Amino acid sequence: MTLALSTRLADYAAVAAALGVDAVALVPGPNFTRALGHSFMSHERPFLVVIPASGSTTAPAALLPNLELGSWTLVGFDGVTFDWRDQTGYDREFAALTAHLGLKSLAVEGQVMRVFVHHALMRAQPGLRIIDAEREISALRMVKTDDDIAALQAAIEISERALSRTLDQIRLGQSEKDIERALVQALFAEGADDLSFAPIVAAGDNSARPHASARADYAVQAGDALLLDFGARKDGFAADITRTVFLDHASDEGRAVYDTVLRANLKGFEVTRPGVTAHAIDDAVTGVLEASPFADRIRTKTGHGLGRDVHEAPYIMRGNPMPLPAGTVYTNEPGLYEIGKFGVRIEDDVLVTETGALSLTTFPKELMVLKC
Amino acid sequence: MTLALSTRLADYAAVAAALGVDAVALVPGPNFTRALGHSFMSHERPFLVVIPASGSTTAPAALLPNLELGSWTLVGFDGVTFDWRDQTGYDREFAALTAHLGLKSLAVEGQVMRVFVHHALMRAQPGLRIIDAEREISALRMVKTDDDIAALQAAIEISERALSRTLDQIRLGQSEKDIERALVQALFAEGADDLSFAPIVAAGDNSARPHASARADYAVQAGDALLLDFGARKDGFAADITRTVFLDHASDEGRAVYDTVLRANLKGFEVTRPGVTAHAIDDAVTGVLEASPFADRIRTKTGHGLGRDVHEAPYIMRGNPMPLPAGTVYTNEPGLYEIGKFGVRIEDDVLVTETGALSLTTFPKELMVLKC
Repeated sequence: MTLALSTRLADYAAVAAALGVDAVALVPGPNFTRALGHSFMSHERPFLVVIPASGSTTAPAALLPNLELGSWTLVGFDGVTFDWRDQTGYDREFAALTAHLGLKSLAVEGQVMRVFVHHALMRAQPGLRIIDAEREISALRMVKTDDDIAALQAAIEISERALSRTLDQIRLGQSEKDIERALVQALFAEGADDLSFAPIVAAGDNSARPHASARADYAVQAGDALLLDFGARKDGFAADITRTVFLDHASDEGRAVYDTVLRANLKGFEVTRPGVTAHAIDDAVTGVLEASPFADRIRTKTGHGLGRDVHEAPYIMRGNPMPLPAGTVYTNEPGLYEIGKFGVRIEDDVLVTETGALSLTTFPKELMVLKC
Repeated sequence: MTLALSTRLADYAAVAAALGVDAVALVPGPNFTRALGHSFMSHERPFLVVIPASGSTTAPAALLPNLELGSWTLVGFDGVTFDWRDQTGYDREFAALTAHLGLKSLAVEGQVMRVFVHHALMRAQPGLRIIDAEREISALRMVKTDDDIAALQAAIEISERALSRTLDQIRLGQSEKDIERALVQALFAEGADDLSFAPIVAAGDNSARPHASARADYAVQAGDALLLDFGARKDGFAADITRTVFLDHASDEGRAVYDTVLRANLKGFEVTRPGVTAHAIDDAVTGVLEASPFADRIRTKTGHGLGRDVHEAPYIMRGNPMPLPAGTVYTNEPGLYEIGKFGVRIEDDVLVTETGALSLTTFPKELMVLKC
């Protein structure tokens, strides 16, 4: 169910009040889209919405490029809008915005707002206290609505159909780039609105780089581990799935590593229930890896929240005490990476349910040897 | 020709020296990719390279997530690398980085660096003077090399073939979303590495929104203006092209507006030569629009630089005194937008040559009425 704009803005007003600051500022990105119900591009043009803390009698305010006014009317925003034009710049409108709001302190999304907007705010109101409230602001997206989950499931189904198509087309001698291109085409053919991120398609030694780029000059060969980490975006939500397959045959070491990663992944499901902490999940999953002969190949945390953003709260890592309420979706993606040799990662998208965990990804994860 | 890493880093050291600051910091994005020769993802994990000003005897330094070490070895970076792990965070490494560099002042890319990195730097070295040198840093990308231009041409050729394919498939009654999906599939089928940005496919009143989103619930109809603004990314470079076509027939007003926009676009080519200022181009182009009966429909500047980033320097607008050297590529994209009615934009990618201007886009721009 879609909430009314005033209800959604009230969520952010409450965050400001809880933090003891005058207001929350949002810039185009996932929180902005959730709050306003529409997405906007940002690029070089500052665009922000400022929502005063609950209890304030000041109206919310928006600052945006004049060229967006036509789209802005669709939002139904009933605050004050300050628009600026390319030809005259935006400093005057920032000054008008901060004067209207009487700001002394402001919570911002530190992972989304860029320095030029921070600086424009400081020029407009020297002495303004800007705090990074990425965690508190993005926490509002952590518990997914039924609509959110439906969109995620649609994105995941597209991604899994695309993976099947792609695996069917793989032949020894193709380059990683060839396989990446087949995967991307399959994602759009299956109905993706966009890619969640530039896919990772990495074979052999490249699979040991968690964020590898596909190589045009490496031909995949028998015995290679081939890691595919990718996702479709659908209706604003991003899938994120990884499978690692072996081409033609798997070495004993490859099988042992794969088995270890799979046991770690399964452990993540086992310990997930409402209220489990991000720390506890990572501790259990990473614990399996640490207890194996491959402990020196651990390079990443277990995973991250997933939703409108491909990386969002909660970050599933030791030291993060955040409890996961039912409705949270996170990636369970343990991996083992031996630099110069090969890597294995298995990534599922997990919904915390009232009673435990549900894997939204359903693609088989038993060790797969592709005869190609 | 690809320049050596040390030569590329020296460019940034020179920017720091010219600005009178201790160093330049780069974060993943187009400048980073140009400087390091490899691209990295950023997400929630801080990653930066700091290059001391020319004349300094301090080695450059990098701060990056441990999980990227495998990819980082490919760069051949010969400075000091501080890596941090998800489980322990990065504050200690930021402190080590600023201590190593003895930083008092730092130039950053204000359009790329996000607030959480700015704050981490300030925590590590309170009192650090951070200046936004987006313009000076990105200016190094303004004059394109032959390789850059070849990549842009490849991206544009892919985009234009995809446009032809898409126009052939358009039928009255399709939704904007249907057309967008056909366009995206055609882009990848023609060889795109990625999209330059989420395409704009907007018909009827939606075409009057310069950054419209495609609607699933609007069926295109006879008489509609249909605006397509999109581009393929290839080998790190982004095409950006807009064409506006009319479906079945064009009204007299539609023809008059189209003719005005086309004359403005042609004027841009006419005044372009090495040394022309961004101001002078916008003044000439916008002047044509202002002299028409549709002056109240002007909503944007003439355009922007184009390269690794889809919006980069130089911004083609009045008040920008920057002269354009030969080798600059910019978008010439005048438009007229009547909110609630329709909009027309024609966008070419223009290379400033030794003697004038060359359109890298070659797709016909005479008024096109699609019989569909």
